[in-house]
Amino acid sequence: MSINSFGHLLRFTTWGESHGPALGAVVDGCPPGLGLSEADLQPFLDARRPGTSRFTTQRREPDEVRILSGVFEGRTTGTPISLMIENVDQRSKDYSEVAKAYRPGHADYAYDAKYGFRDYRGGGRSSARETAARVAAGGIARLVIPEVRIVAHVIEIGGDRATSFDEAEIARNPFFCADAVAAARWEKLVDKARKAGSSLGAVVECVASGVPAGWGAPLYAKLDADLAAAMMGINAVKAVEIGDGFAAARLRGEENADPMRPGENGPEFLANHAGGIAGGISTGQPVVVRVGFKPTSSILTPVETIDRVGAATEIATKGRHDPCVGIRGAPVVEAMMALVLADHKLLHRGQCG
Amino acid sequence: MSINSFGHLLRFTTWGESHGPALGAVVDGCPPGLGLSEADLQPFLDARRPGTSRFTTQRREPDEVRILSGVFEGRTTGTPISLMIENVDQRSKDYSEVAKAYRPGHADYAYDAKYGFRDYRGGGRSSARETAARVAAGGIARLVIPEVRIVAHVIEIGGDRATSFDEAEIARNPFFCADAVAAARWEKLVDKARKAGSSLGAVVECVASGVPAGWGAPLYAKLDADLAAAMMGINAVKAVEIGDGFAAARLRGEENADPMRPGENGPEFLANHAGGIAGGISTGQPVVVRVGFKPTSSILTPVETIDRVGAATEIATKGRHDPCVGIRGAPVVEAMMALVLADHKLLHRGQCG
Amino acid sequence: MSINSFGHLLRFTTWGESHGPALGAVVDGCPPGLGLSEADLQPFLDARRPGTSRFTTQRREPDEVRILSGVFEGRTTGTPISLMIENVDQRSKDYSEVAKAYRPGHADYAYDAKYGFRDYRGGGRSSARETAARVAAGGIARLVIPEVRIVAHVIEIGGDRATSFDEAEIARNPFFCADAVAAARWEKLVDKARKAGSSLGAVVECVASGVPAGWGAPLYAKLDADLAAAMMGINAVKAVEIGDGFAAARLRGEENADPMRPGENGPEFLANHAGGIAGGISTGQPVVVRVGFKPTSSILTPVETIDRVGAATEIATKGRHDPCVGIRGAPVVEAMMALVLADHKLLHRGQCG
Amino acid sequence: MSINSFGHLLRFTTWGESHGPALGAVVDGCPPGLGLSEADLQPFLDARRPGTSRFTTQRREPDEVRILSGVFEGRTTGTPISLMIENVDQRSKDYSEVAKAYRPGHADYAYDAKYGFRDYRGGGRSSARETAARVAAGGIARLVIPEVRIVAHVIEIGGDRATSFDEAEIARNPFFCADAVAAARWEKLVDKARKAGSSLGAVVECVASGVPAGWGAPLYAKLDADLAAAMMGINAVKAVEIGDGFAAARLRGEENADPMRPGENGPEFLANHAGGIAGGISTGQPVVVRVGFKPTSSILTPVETIDRVGAATEIATKGRHDPCVGIRGAPVVEAMMALVLADHKLLHRGQCG
Repeated sequence: MSINSFGHLLRFTTWGESHGPALGAVVDGCPPGLGLSEADLQPFLDARRPGTSRFTTQRREPDEVRILSGVFEGRTTGTPISLMIENVDQRSKDYSEVAKAYRPGHADYAYDAKYGFRDYRGGGRSSARETAARVAAGGIARLVIPEVRIVAHVIEIGGDRATSFDEAEIARNPFFCADAVAAARWEKLVDKARKAGSSLGAVVECVASGVPAGWGAPLYAKLDADLAAAMMGINAVKAVEIGDGFAAARLRGEENADPMRPGENGPEFLANHAGGIAGGISTGQPVVVRVGFKPTSSILTPVETIDRVGAATEIATKGRHDPCVGIRGAPVVEAMMALVLADHKLLHRGQCG
Repeated sequence: MSINSFGHLLRFTTWGESHGPALGAVVDGCPPGLGLSEADLQPFLDARRPGTSRFTTQRREPDEVRILSGVFEGRTTGTPISLMIENVDQRSKDYSEVAKAYRPGHADYAYDAKYGFRDYRGGGRSSARETAARVAAGGIARLVIPEVRIVAHVIEIGGDRATSFDEAEIARNPFFCADAVAAARWEKLVDKARKAGSSLGAVVECVASGVPAGWGAPLYAKLDADLAAAMMGINAVKAVEIGDGFAAARLRGEENADPMRPGENGPEFLANHAGGIAGGISTGQPVVVRVGFKPTSSILTPVETIDRVGAATEIATKGRHDPCVGIRGAPVVEAMMALVLADHKLLHRGQCG
Repeated sequence: MSINSFGHLLRFTTWGESHGPALGAVVDGCPPGLGLSEADLQPFLDARRPGTSRFTTQRREPDEVRILSGVFEGRTTGTPISLMIENVDQRSKDYSEVAKAYRPGHADYAYDAKYGFRDYRGGGRSSARETAARVAAGGIARLVIPEVRIVAHVIEIGGDRATSFDEAEIARNPFFCADAVAAARWEKLVDKARKAGSSLGAVVECVASGVPAGWGAPLYAKLDADLAAAMMGINAVKAVEIGDGFAAARLRGEENADPMRPGENGPEFLANHAGGIAGGISTGQPVVVRVGFKPTSSILTPVETIDRVGAATEIATKGRHDPCVGIRGAPVVEAMMALVLADHKLLHRGQCG
Repeated sequence: MSINSFGHLLRFTTWGESHGPALGAVVDGCPPGLGLSEADLQPFLDARRPGTSRFTTQRREPDEVRILSGVFEGRTTGTPISLMIENVDQRSKDYSEVAKAYRPGHADYAYDAKYGFRDYRGGGRSSARETAARVAAGGIARLVIPEVRIVAHVIEIGGDRATSFDEAEIARNPFFCADAVAAARWEKLVDKARKAGSSLGAVVECVASGVPAGWGAPLYAKLDADLAAAMMGINAVKAVEIGDGFAAARLRGEENADPMRPGENGPEFLANHAGGIAGGISTGQPVVVRVGFKPTSSILTPVETIDRVGAATEIATKGRHDPCVGIRGAPVVEAMMALVLADHKLLHRGQCG
């Protein structure tokens, strides 16, 4: 019930602020004997890393992860794996204005209301920088579920939706977009928003294939409930759906059914409206989740607000920020998917053998 | 980490199957000294109760709740409160066909894959009947947060959306609909689906007003993450959004900001796109969540499926079922909202005094 | 973190008061497919049942357990198992004096200090009657670990220690004593205390054989740490030791070592000072725990105390009580041992496969 | 349920091995606004630090703690506090023999049985070095409970018991002994064991005064159950008792009662057999716990054992080890006491306001 931990059996705890000396995660409950080195985790961190294109924050962070415990002679020992990423490119002077007034839509006011004060430098604990720790932890989770393949991609930015899917495209543009034509449109769209000092929202879709039937659990550790918590816990996320999601609410029962047929390797399904989960338990079909990110609340456009003593003022955030934080959400969504699935694999093995 | 429990400090565990002798919940961590009797809980159970109109399952259950522990001389003692609801109107003969083949879209196949067999009578543990236990537990949670007012209503059935809001209407129609005109349309819509042996999905919106700023916690016990888990854990739910949700992903940063102004009783907000939560912590604005229910998967229309030995067959479910399970979802969503908020009130008090 | 739950993967939650209508437990996380009926649990409840000799409380309770969920066609389904035991022989009139003043050594005062009031009838939630629920839950745990054999016996009453061990004797006397000679002495000892309105303490030893090497986990879910919590949570327990326990603190390193030799079925140990646990993980040797029970605090001898408004008074407890509550502790200690071991079996399987 | 975490609301997770680059703890759930810097924690680490006398291991570790997160402008922010202590004086070559064969009484064999292999350098995760992280975390817990005063001292080494108590003496000798005469005896005793390549056990007593009545909770988060788990989880601990502990099992009910009298500041007690806890809840009296440490299992005296392939051999441990690990247990026991009490203070405030 640790408020900065996630998971049942494979459980990770993150720590760190945007402008502190470092951030990290402790991954507990990892099976022993898995080959693990920093090189297994770095590619995922590199994918999430800021400053690699003009479409993300210009903060330059190498995001080099160090493994401080839990690995011996190249293999996991079954004891806690401590991961640390140093913060390198803090520029705390950027945040003097944020210290005095609240950015509407940001966590500033809520943190002050809860804790009485806050680390305002770069958003402190509420910064999306925390997601680097999740991504590193997710890299370990992937080793626990080699049978599963996870792909996340951005399907919509600022209301403009991708319409085709070519997985090879995802790595070819800075938007994690599987549709080359949409990616070209988004380049202009995001550029325009960036130059206007505005920001855009996005929708990320993530598909995990290879998940066997039987992972998950009724009723409060449902696979979809845990996925919902995992995704809604990511910064800027306001919506989560499984399979057809809200669209399923507009289907009739016979349209929404996923008919089953005998197949060579067990049952085959003629559709996947359910997104691979029924009754909280995986069906053997791909697990599909879609996640809605709001636009970044740190924008250059001045917005009416109040200051710490409650007086009216307005604020424009001059620090370095992502014009569309949802873009870099794709690797984070992948990591959370991996962490939930790996955890449920262990839970299932624990209960059902 | 109990898989049938929910909550951190105010924690409840449910048990029971659709056709067992009874079902119930144990509510642990309730503050002492709260006035509590069965009469405080029964109205919520009555609202969820089946068989009260032709738009819900025709199973007749009085759903009378008994308090078996944790209350002395009319007040909560601070020890576990055991709630029990007897099952009265089981007709297990209805389910012989379900025992043999899997209903597409239902938990049948996933349960068998996980556990090796299942209690097929009425869906067993996966039946929406379990939600009676949540509603009873939610009644206790409400006593913990007298400062909060929770209202859920159905805003959409089968793709037909309500367009006006008059809270007084909610209790006047069998759809928990705040729009009398929409309710009249839905009467025909649901009747038609019911007669056709089909089913419809629905969207429920729930608003909690009176929540003070400061409840919730970064990052894995975010108020919105816990709400997402709570709602996604309800039977038939496939989507959850907070505030503007997916629509926020289509707004620009300046449109999505909720500007703040000084008010007589603390800050006032000029909008509530955030749905009352920023950075996982309540802002003092109404907490708004929307929940998408898929259409019931038990339908009279025959669907292709396989049987327990993997052979092709088709199935039509003849038992008594809700033509639109989302309708009765409204009281369940209210209960889960109450349980999450009450839990976070205690958590906040614990950490921050 | 539920305060009335115990266990990680196999987790149970108990509820109920001494004089409420019933008490019970919900057992969550049980593996599916285990044969289970009330007949599997009743013998353990019968062993703990009061009123069977003059050496226990004269309250007459059949302690018949009912299984309300989680079992279908005679097998566990993997869903929560709800167990209920009705209270039959309450005599609440006995407790009028306890309502007004605090029994020294009892939970009365502490409960009032914490909760503001208490259910004083028979000790309410603090009554040893709650242990019936543990014993029932323990019966389920035993089914999860058929490879393990658990035997608890009373080794000391009122400072008089048993000196021989014949397991067959345990069931032949009302003291769970493996030493027939000691049992004969204890008969007089306990009789004398009972007639004098006094009470006696006891020490229970419990040995679990057949536990394979590898159960448990560093560092905060150590097998011995969980056993310590399990035992110290039993009413009236004030001390727990593993293996040689406090005596080990008086040994030299070479005396306390358990030398290992190659054996036909894996390593053999030449001693078991460690009580079958090293570094929090089982070694394959018998797991040995000893538990100290204080004398019952409800005694006929008047003791100085204060009443609810803080005035000086004295109290003599006239209700029905065990003259030596440790005696009936033996089946409870066995149940807790089973619950901890079963839980760790599942945990180990979850993490290590 | 993280296996390397402890606590309910104030929860800490430790990581690190004896010979890894560093070790540490993440403390989650700390109240905001508490003044905190490294200087608040260092004195406790210094008290536990090895190499300060010839009676502890000769490993030289500065044990300088760094705070990496959760503190801003000198105050706790309410977010996770990451503590790191670098390992400086590893000499991994010392452990070549330990890699091949199992030290009887040590965790070596159990770790291999569980995980398939182990980090054998200095005991890896099972090393008492991990307790540095607890001591650092305990320093934070103390800030949460300024009303409580905690004193631990060694009351027995190798069976030789201290007989007088002068708190000022504790800091004057290397044994945390409150009895100057006993300390002088122990100097010879431990020296002799050290020179003989043997080791000794010890008993530590810890008293927390100032704990108000009402902390703790029935039944599975009892204050004494949590203390038992906390203490039994410390390396080398085999026994825990509260108040009179096992001695209470030899008292009669009227002897064991702690009579109550009206006092100027609430009730006064005429004795404290209960060790400040009744029914799992604090009574307002000092909380008293005694903890038994076995002798260090790493000794120079050769002991029969087996090697990794199961063949007979013998082992003598030549690395640097504490001749009596219980001595340095005193600061660790204090830290665990602080952590349990601080956690229960928050829990009580959460549930009872």
